[in-house]
Amino acid sequence: VEAEDQAALLAAMEPMHPADVADLLEQLGSGERRELIALLGDEFDGDILSELDEGLREEVIDALSPEVLTQAVRELESDDVVDLLEALDEPEQQETILDALEGSDRLAVEQAMSFPENSAGRLMQREVVAAPEHWTVGDAIDFMRSTLDLPEQFYHIIIVDPRYRPIGYVTLGKVMSSDRVTKLVDVQEESFRTIPFDQDEEDVAYAFNQYHLISAPVVDDDGRLVGVITIDDAMNVLSEEHEEDLLLLAGVGDESIADRTLQIVRQRFPWLLVNLGTAILASIVIAQFEDVLQAVVALAVLMPIVASMGGNAGTQSMTVAVRALATRDLTGSNGWRVVRRETLAGLLNGMAFAIIVGIVGLVWFGMPMLGVVIALAMVINLVVAGLAGVLIPIILDKVGVDPALASGTFVTTVTDVVGFFAFLGLAGAILL
Amino acid sequence: VEAEDQAALLAAMEPMHPADVADLLEQLGSGERRELIALLGDEFDGDILSELDEGLREEVIDALSPEVLTQAVRELESDDVVDLLEALDEPEQQETILDALEGSDRLAVEQAMSFPENSAGRLMQREVVAAPEHWTVGDAIDFMRSTLDLPEQFYHIIIVDPRYRPIGYVTLGKVMSSDRVTKLVDVQEESFRTIPFDQDEEDVAYAFNQYHLISAPVVDDDGRLVGVITIDDAMNVLSEEHEEDLLLLAGVGDESIADRTLQIVRQRFPWLLVNLGTAILASIVIAQFEDVLQAVVALAVLMPIVASMGGNAGTQSMTVAVRALATRDLTGSNGWRVVRRETLAGLLNGMAFAIIVGIVGLVWFGMPMLGVVIALAMVINLVVAGLAGVLIPIILDKVGVDPALASGTFVTTVTDVVGFFAFLGLAGAILL
Repeated sequence: VEAEDQAALLAAMEPMHPADVADLLEQLGSGERRELIALLGDEFDGDILSELDEGLREEVIDALSPEVLTQAVRELESDDVVDLLEALDEPEQQETILDALEGSDRLAVEQAMSFPENSAGRLMQREVVAAPEHWTVGDAIDFMRSTLDLPEQFYHIIIVDPRYRPIGYVTLGKVMSSDRVTKLVDVQEESFRTIPFDQDEEDVAYAFNQYHLISAPVVDDDGRLVGVITIDDAMNVLSEEHEEDLLLLAGVGDESIADRTLQIVRQRFPWLLVNLGTAILASIVIAQFEDVLQAVVALAVLMPIVASMGGNAGTQSMTVAVRALATRDLTGSNGWRVVRRETLAGLLNGMAFAIIVGIVGLVWFGMPMLGVVIALAMVINLVVAGLAGVLIPIILDKVGVDPALASGTFVTTVTDVVGFFAFLGLAGAILL
Repeated sequence: VEAEDQAALLAAMEPMHPADVADLLEQLGSGERRELIALLGDEFDGDILSELDEGLREEVIDALSPEVLTQAVRELESDDVVDLLEALDEPEQQETILDALEGSDRLAVEQAMSFPENSAGRLMQREVVAAPEHWTVGDAIDFMRSTLDLPEQFYHIIIVDPRYRPIGYVTLGKVMSSDRVTKLVDVQEESFRTIPFDQDEEDVAYAFNQYHLISAPVVDDDGRLVGVITIDDAMNVLSEEHEEDLLLLAGVGDESIADRTLQIVRQRFPWLLVNLGTAILASIVIAQFEDVLQAVVALAVLMPIVASMGGNAGTQSMTVAVRALATRDLTGSNGWRVVRRETLAGLLNGMAFAIIVGIVGLVWFGMPMLGVVIALAMVINLVVAGLAGVLIPIILDKVGVDPALASGTFVTTVTDVVGFFAFLGLAGAILL
């Protein structure tokens, strides 16, 4: 594919969307990546940087010549530059990028960077189309025709009062379908709501999703219009939140398929270390019953079944709860109902599986009491799994810890410890 | 809260968005839910039905009087009615809703239902704003002013050729900022791309996300314009896909926090049954080493550590792989590189944890060779976990099974079986 033939390569990549070029770069090895960037030369599009996975941006920026980088950064919209800066750890690289910007753009970016991280202020674009409340449709159209640098994407005209506070908005469709003499305020949308500049981006995304917003004005402490957030930004946040939850639940940090081996090893080590701690805890429980295990070695054979079923059932409850907390479908008002229901579901499934594993234990080892022991342990562990699976995320959420981050470890620790303790403890009491 | 005082209740709920009313209904118990619906009476807004969790719709529809239901359904846009119909299992309820619609609306809905499930045809709205290629900005504005039933939300004017095939589109912002004499084709967007009516909705959502689309025209087999999909529909699909992946990975089906206990029990039982099967498989492996366990009972104590670490490491690799497959960041071209990297990461973390658990085994039980056994087993199992964690999802994806659905079970089965076999097998060879 890569015969170093720049002309042919550029011809082939010409029709590609920057997002696709970024994907291509992500899928190459780092050697090939450098070659491709060198071949692209000053055809390197600034948008490729925005589309690139965050973990790769530093490497790619290093690979670009200063001229190409300056050119690329200048092509970007200010909110994309902010996004780029956020992902860079090295202050030097941040400085290089800021230096590439011209006066007013640089100011806009620096202002945005002064807003709290993950806030609406970082997310918004500063370019807005606002109209005084007395304007008619005709005024708005004339204004837009005479304004040269309108935002690249906008969906509403925001109506502001004399103190530049947004009081409503009109969709462009409504503006275009109304007569020139119609007042803007007469065709404004019902869905109007403003977003404070310091609102968490997660709450912003929730509002867009819940109320089907397309764009929403951002206001400062005095209620004055400072920018606008559009649905594509909100969609991005939503997508990142989802990904974060998924990865956190699996005990992976902010990892990507483009990361290098050592990054991966470093990322996963702490989670595995925590897991080792909880596994050792479970082993300590087992160690209390060495004499029971010595007497009936069949217990060692069946022991993992109880723990595994508990872990699985706990993960089921927990995932539903973590998800419902993230979408705000699980709140104080239905919390207790959900806890009761999960516990009851654990009891019912526990009884069903108690019968099944009881028969397995009886048939396999020919010991009726072994069947009884594993059946009882199964009921206990599935009830505890249902209870812990929903209670632990709720408690973590209450104390301000992201439930996706820590629930998994806690829940499986509980089910392992309870599973081994119930099974071996009952065996000691009943079989010996 | 509920003193059955209808007037006060309605006053309190008046300013609430239908999405919030739906959330409230989801959080109530089913008795309270019925009461609230009865109290709302004919103030029940059709949009509440659309916003409601799919699992609850049947119950709420049953609770509505026929008149209220008819009224509610008529308020909805045709694509929302389609969405409503898709979620209903009972043909009677589907019939009731279709009967509520008037002639042309009913026809539109029935046509949409004739498209394949989960296709672009189901997702699109049929209301479009199209313009012949020779039109100017002025023509478009005049047309829109004279047309009474424009779509409620639209962001582009689609330019069509004489055979009604879309050839480009113009953003409303561009239309409004251009002079009346400007030709539409001269201000069209570069991002234009059409979507075939039978494209899978997952691919549609991918295109919106990848190319930052706001709306896209849908075409039939002859390339003729049949509808338009907007970003909010795509956002919905994306959100559902994410949720599905998350729940499937945890072994939960299409479950919601509003489901009843018996629904939950039924939903989770099959997954737990599969897990029981794999747990028994692991037990069978352990049973092969009963004599070893009998000789060294410390093995039973440490045994779960190896399996648990393997399961955890495998889940880490697997989640990253499943996610990368879903976002199409993992493809044929980088598949082998990712497999090599995961295996190497498994080896490195395996060696790190081998040292740690080796020391634990040595110190705890004072048997140096036990430390060696668990260290070796740890390396083997973490390498296998890395390999299986990425290979299994790739293979499932290749053979057309959703990797999120089945990977988890396969991966943990592999790590359990390999973990117990390696640990007890090595113990048998080295310690006895």
